[in-house]
Amino acid sequence: MTIDYMHTIEEHESIVRSYVRSFPTVFDTAKGSYLYNLDGEAYLDFFAGASVMNYGHNHPEIKKALIEYLERDGVTHSLDMASKARAEFLDTFHRLILEPRGMDYRVQFPGPTGTNAVETALKIARKVTGREDVISFTNAFHGMTLGSLSVTGNEFKRKGAGIPLTHGQTMPYCGYFGPCVNRGGSERNCVDYLDRMLKDGGSGVDHPAAIIMEPIQGEGGLNVACAEWMRQVEALCKKYDMLLIVDDIQAGNGRAGSYFSFEESGIKPDVVTVSKSLSGYGMPLSITLVKPEHDIWEPGEHNGTFRGFNPAVVTAKRALELFWSDDSFQKEVLRKGEKMREFLAGLLKKYPQAPGQVRGRGMMQGIAFDNAELAEKISEHAFQRKLIIETSGPRDEVLKLLPPLVTSDEDLEKGLAIIEQALVAAMEELGMNRDAASSQ
Amino acid sequence: MTIDYMHTIEEHESIVRSYVRSFPTVFDTAKGSYLYNLDGEAYLDFFAGASVMNYGHNHPEIKKALIEYLERDGVTHSLDMASKARAEFLDTFHRLILEPRGMDYRVQFPGPTGTNAVETALKIARKVTGREDVISFTNAFHGMTLGSLSVTGNEFKRKGAGIPLTHGQTMPYCGYFGPCVNRGGSERNCVDYLDRMLKDGGSGVDHPAAIIMEPIQGEGGLNVACAEWMRQVEALCKKYDMLLIVDDIQAGNGRAGSYFSFEESGIKPDVVTVSKSLSGYGMPLSITLVKPEHDIWEPGEHNGTFRGFNPAVVTAKRALELFWSDDSFQKEVLRKGEKMREFLAGLLKKYPQAPGQVRGRGMMQGIAFDNAELAEKISEHAFQRKLIIETSGPRDEVLKLLPPLVTSDEDLEKGLAIIEQALVAAMEELGMNRDAASSQ
Amino acid sequence: MTIDYMHTIEEHESIVRSYVRSFPTVFDTAKGSYLYNLDGEAYLDFFAGASVMNYGHNHPEIKKALIEYLERDGVTHSLDMASKARAEFLDTFHRLILEPRGMDYRVQFPGPTGTNAVETALKIARKVTGREDVISFTNAFHGMTLGSLSVTGNEFKRKGAGIPLTHGQTMPYCGYFGPCVNRGGSERNCVDYLDRMLKDGGSGVDHPAAIIMEPIQGEGGLNVACAEWMRQVEALCKKYDMLLIVDDIQAGNGRAGSYFSFEESGIKPDVVTVSKSLSGYGMPLSITLVKPEHDIWEPGEHNGTFRGFNPAVVTAKRALELFWSDDSFQKEVLRKGEKMREFLAGLLKKYPQAPGQVRGRGMMQGIAFDNAELAEKISEHAFQRKLIIETSGPRDEVLKLLPPLVTSDEDLEKGLAIIEQALVAAMEELGMNRDAASSQ
Amino acid sequence: MTIDYMHTIEEHESIVRSYVRSFPTVFDTAKGSYLYNLDGEAYLDFFAGASVMNYGHNHPEIKKALIEYLERDGVTHSLDMASKARAEFLDTFHRLILEPRGMDYRVQFPGPTGTNAVETALKIARKVTGREDVISFTNAFHGMTLGSLSVTGNEFKRKGAGIPLTHGQTMPYCGYFGPCVNRGGSERNCVDYLDRMLKDGGSGVDHPAAIIMEPIQGEGGLNVACAEWMRQVEALCKKYDMLLIVDDIQAGNGRAGSYFSFEESGIKPDVVTVSKSLSGYGMPLSITLVKPEHDIWEPGEHNGTFRGFNPAVVTAKRALELFWSDDSFQKEVLRKGEKMREFLAGLLKKYPQAPGQVRGRGMMQGIAFDNAELAEKISEHAFQRKLIIETSGPRDEVLKLLPPLVTSDEDLEKGLAIIEQALVAAMEELGMNRDAASSQ
Repeated sequence: MTIDYMHTIEEHESIVRSYVRSFPTVFDTAKGSYLYNLDGEAYLDFFAGASVMNYGHNHPEIKKALIEYLERDGVTHSLDMASKARAEFLDTFHRLILEPRGMDYRVQFPGPTGTNAVETALKIARKVTGREDVISFTNAFHGMTLGSLSVTGNEFKRKGAGIPLTHGQTMPYCGYFGPCVNRGGSERNCVDYLDRMLKDGGSGVDHPAAIIMEPIQGEGGLNVACAEWMRQVEALCKKYDMLLIVDDIQAGNGRAGSYFSFEESGIKPDVVTVSKSLSGYGMPLSITLVKPEHDIWEPGEHNGTFRGFNPAVVTAKRALELFWSDDSFQKEVLRKGEKMREFLAGLLKKYPQAPGQVRGRGMMQGIAFDNAELAEKISEHAFQRKLIIETSGPRDEVLKLLPPLVTSDEDLEKGLAIIEQALVAAMEELGMNRDAASSQ
Repeated sequence: MTIDYMHTIEEHESIVRSYVRSFPTVFDTAKGSYLYNLDGEAYLDFFAGASVMNYGHNHPEIKKALIEYLERDGVTHSLDMASKARAEFLDTFHRLILEPRGMDYRVQFPGPTGTNAVETALKIARKVTGREDVISFTNAFHGMTLGSLSVTGNEFKRKGAGIPLTHGQTMPYCGYFGPCVNRGGSERNCVDYLDRMLKDGGSGVDHPAAIIMEPIQGEGGLNVACAEWMRQVEALCKKYDMLLIVDDIQAGNGRAGSYFSFEESGIKPDVVTVSKSLSGYGMPLSITLVKPEHDIWEPGEHNGTFRGFNPAVVTAKRALELFWSDDSFQKEVLRKGEKMREFLAGLLKKYPQAPGQVRGRGMMQGIAFDNAELAEKISEHAFQRKLIIETSGPRDEVLKLLPPLVTSDEDLEKGLAIIEQALVAAMEELGMNRDAASSQ
Repeated sequence: MTIDYMHTIEEHESIVRSYVRSFPTVFDTAKGSYLYNLDGEAYLDFFAGASVMNYGHNHPEIKKALIEYLERDGVTHSLDMASKARAEFLDTFHRLILEPRGMDYRVQFPGPTGTNAVETALKIARKVTGREDVISFTNAFHGMTLGSLSVTGNEFKRKGAGIPLTHGQTMPYCGYFGPCVNRGGSERNCVDYLDRMLKDGGSGVDHPAAIIMEPIQGEGGLNVACAEWMRQVEALCKKYDMLLIVDDIQAGNGRAGSYFSFEESGIKPDVVTVSKSLSGYGMPLSITLVKPEHDIWEPGEHNGTFRGFNPAVVTAKRALELFWSDDSFQKEVLRKGEKMREFLAGLLKKYPQAPGQVRGRGMMQGIAFDNAELAEKISEHAFQRKLIIETSGPRDEVLKLLPPLVTSDEDLEKGLAIIEQALVAAMEELGMNRDAASSQ
Repeated sequence: MTIDYMHTIEEHESIVRSYVRSFPTVFDTAKGSYLYNLDGEAYLDFFAGASVMNYGHNHPEIKKALIEYLERDGVTHSLDMASKARAEFLDTFHRLILEPRGMDYRVQFPGPTGTNAVETALKIARKVTGREDVISFTNAFHGMTLGSLSVTGNEFKRKGAGIPLTHGQTMPYCGYFGPCVNRGGSERNCVDYLDRMLKDGGSGVDHPAAIIMEPIQGEGGLNVACAEWMRQVEALCKKYDMLLIVDDIQAGNGRAGSYFSFEESGIKPDVVTVSKSLSGYGMPLSITLVKPEHDIWEPGEHNGTFRGFNPAVVTAKRALELFWSDDSFQKEVLRKGEKMREFLAGLLKKYPQAPGQVRGRGMMQGIAFDNAELAEKISEHAFQRKLIIETSGPRDEVLKLLPPLVTSDEDLEKGLAIIEQALVAAMEELGMNRDAASSQ
């Protein structure tokens, strides 16, 4: 039977669907840095499933491990009963990731999505401290279920709750008011503000259970916290006996270079959430890392049906072996990230009529355009040129580059070139003076 | 490398793990009604991943479809961009499930777990009505994220939130006080109580946005709502302009016989949540069905990373084709369910020293024992006899039989026989008078 | 200067004003059972300031004590510093009220209004138990500040909050579904329902800090709890380690006969709130009685500006001496209450076309009319005949008689006669068949 | 009968009592600036009932009006029925206060305490805007009932709630981080911070219904907002369509010089709360002023028993006539306030070993000592010298001078002299180097 695929989707799927509107074609297959539509047209992917496909689509080695597991009837679903696959993942994650970094954490499988991991982290913090409020930061994004939404900044998403979101306190993220003293700027360090509010018994900020923090805010607009700020936040947590939760769902798994995006700062969070590229193959998988002293759950106090999805731990283990056995992959990410950053900085210089700010770290780079409309237009024009690229930030003003980390230099350059073409086309459409740039 | 699998799990996984404690062996493979441990020992599965494996473990036809999809590099992860796989699933679900039942719903992919679907349903009800409270029922279970937990009854799970759970109002489930007039009993119909509280402007129950209801409460203790009660609840929703949400996550997908567990009642819920066995292969997948007139989302107002997990819709489509093209499967489920019920009723009669109550519908059957300890002991003794079976209910007093729906009569009988042996052993351990029964 | 008083009020006072609409004349003076307007017209008062004027308006002895205190420059306002007046009140309250009843309570001055006392009581219960929810009853009224409103049933008042009212759980009041087994009826005792919800770990009712209860619901429609029910509620509080708060603001101070309206039941609440007629002269005064073992406040943890209003404790002391030195006053209240009750019962019998139900206890009596409109019409027609009488209940369907307790038999009979005339006039206006009654 | 007054209080009153602990003597009478204990010892009052006794204790003219009203049996309590006394108050308040200041407000009687007025103001803001959150400021104090407590900063008071306080957002008060650009300092204006948080769709601050602000924070530590900041806050309210609520309970009624403490700034709040000295005689009275366009209540939507306490409006009217018929009183307050301020500044200069900061406006002046203990010690030593003076601020570090506004120059000087003696004694007790000062 033949059906009109796009029509079927428009007819039967809820109107809440979103990315299909920005990238209106029907995809069928995928490989490495490319998605292919029904007509076999290749789209270069600079979105990577919002950082889910860090190792590229359908990596052949991971695919091999997955199919082998399926072929030999490895158990697929086993809730949280013991399975060989799960034990091997735990062992590998411990050996390749935690141990070399001197990190001592227990692994909780909280349900296979990021928001499940965040909900779990919040529960842990509240259980450990007996307190209720959690401090989150401006432009934070932690998920769409009620607990995670309460610590998410975005107004549009928050309104979706339909009820008041309580037990969160929002505080300014690193650099919220502009470059602070940490970075040689003149602004008061945002941490001072937080410290003052916590210290002052009359501030109206009740003693919180935890601070939840993204080292790099992906959805919030590629805001990058400096290492000094992260250390200061960690120090505040110690000072006020709060847990530090790091949400590394989008920036972790090597996206920022190191496996965890906070490694360079040297902080030791109490709880870390990891998901997205964890399975290495686009399979739903999520873990919450918790320091042993905070692992005080009652058995089954938090559970969930799909926390026992074995194919995902099989692919996760294979991905760890392939990319994290030594530091060569990490170095490549940093090298290519630098290339992206230089290109973007050059773009701003070349087209001064489109002012903006380069943001990001590792292979998570972008431009926050002063003219918010521009980012969206570039995304549109890039899609016409078969490049998939998204925007983020509170006004969607940030063009966000998230290519698979395995993207070849050739493909990277190809994508960057399309971005420039799309920028030029977008400026033209928006009537921004193109000649001004040419004459520079 | 060889590792001690169980030791690895005990060392590295959070102590929150639970089922591994009841069923302490390391599973490796699975097929049909059986799970196999590392030593190749076969365990008959009467739990089926809490109703995730309705079609049995690793069904060969579904597996074939999955491996084919992977082999040809079908796109794995595509967020909610259009994919051929997703369109085909939507089409198949519409043709085989919705259309024949005269049901007109849009399909939302809310993230791949049940609790995601419930959170979405609550948001819809609040958005549509502009109201906030949702009525749920005693012993309801809807999930572990904050919104779902607010409409869940279980005290232990609720406490895990660490913050007050608000915006829910709990009301007595069908038959909560014993057999009511609906079933020829003397108790006031629970719906009258609810009606009175909603009608009375002084009751303190604020006008709710919705009622959320499970036709059969799986976690809550195999409580079965009668069709009349469901119709009365639907009528109340109309009377007070509230949405009716049916959570069919555990009882749907044929577990109770029909595809949806509420079909026999003739109700038309405004929102229906489906998950667990939906993918047919233990893959995380979840959908929220919403009547077109309530599908008033803004694009992207609710989203989530893994709502575009294509392998799960591939297996889901295949499962629908295999089991729901006609009504033969459904008839078999009802036949085998009746067999289970008769056996359990016979057991109670044979062992009057272990009094209890048979509960359930379709192949979701069990016994609520007066002596709560007994259910757990039977589960233990069954596991020693290589049968996996769980308990539920507020005091874990209900022995819950959830075999795969494809279980053969032979395996079904084998499992039932083990249950009897386990019951006898459990009574012996608990010092319950066995002879009394023998002498009957 | 002469002003148009009513015009001034209409022009300058907020439209939230209410009683001025039901009783549209400008009052100037008052004495005993009568209010006098600017033209010197006497209005018989069967409302008594919602039970504030139990001892009649401007009682000469109390007035004398007040003016003496003012004349000699007794301190008026002293926050909660020690004053002779306050000490004398405490001593008198202890000697005349608490000691003779075998009641051991500390007295807290929480601010001079009823809702302040209730807010304090809720804080105590939460502090003592460390829990948060408080169970209140259908049609409860406890006040208009946010905490008190959360345990109030009335939908219209609740909506005024503008935010969700949380941490309350509403349960059916005594006799909510009709006469229960306690009173020889067939309905399940409402306490059984509550017990079941509290016992069941899966009910969704979190373990509460307290139950708050009015022995007679004045605003809620003159619903009277039976003594057996009150004892059962007290037993539940013990069983589940919750505090029992009795709100005796409207029904206390002798309104129901005894000083506290719960005396006949023999219960010993953990916390009791008293206000309204406490000062005996219409002065704002309120106390919260708390058992010594629950008096675990930090100094100043709850405070308030006007908890040191000495003239009110001066009049309160004098009122206690005048009316509560022996039981003669109490007996008179019961005698007159019986008279009122008989009259109302006779009225229903005489006018069967106006069916209703006599409700109340002591001198807090009324009729809940089947036709809600009737109550309001009677109030209107009574006012035209210079009788002030109010309605209550969720639909204002209850005609509520609250004459000063000191009302003479003559005035009482006069008021009752007006009620009958007003009823006849109201029925006529509403087209209810008057002849049917005459022919009886 | 003779009783031991202090013993009676200690035995029968709740341990929550507080001021009696700081000022442990039993007061009996009061007149002007003095309180007298049972032994007839006079205590000079620099506390004035926390600004309730602005016109002095038992002012003879007001007392005369009150006794006359009582003598002629003016109605005492009439709920919100019309009374001559109430109409006269409304007329006088309009003529002497509102009209001359070009202020157009309706007067609501919300119950006779400050916290009642605040609860009402919050309800109005939520009803008018349909939104829920209210922004309050660091170190704000608005009252002890649940709604008011939610917008109060003090940690100790907040904890007393026993439940989470939600729907408030706390923001830095004027000058919170030190002198800002408004006052020639280098700190970012606190309003910028608030503006940024409100403008940014990703800040996590939901769109509020209102800002509630004290022009001078009495309980919070005598923090004075500058006029420019108040105008900027008003501009923000307009910009973001929020209501501006000014809580003028402690700083109004002439305490800061002008009748309302915000007059000099020229702002026109949407809602103003007034209480404390409003009745002029220490009687509980409170009003909420609301702009006519926001006066959208339903009749009776907010009510309360004691909002009809006529003696308090009688004294309030008389106080307005006596003190607010022209501007002579206001000028005296400013003159004496300046005197107080100069004295305190001189004190700091004279005793550099007791560093601090003079704070306040009008006759609401004090010193925030660096050594928090010092303020409390001074209060103790002052009491020994028969001066009553309190502390405030989050650590009780601020010595707060609130003498009656009618205090004579002679008494003012007497009180100030005692403060110096008490300071010296306190420094001695705390071992602070007294000689250092002498040698200056």
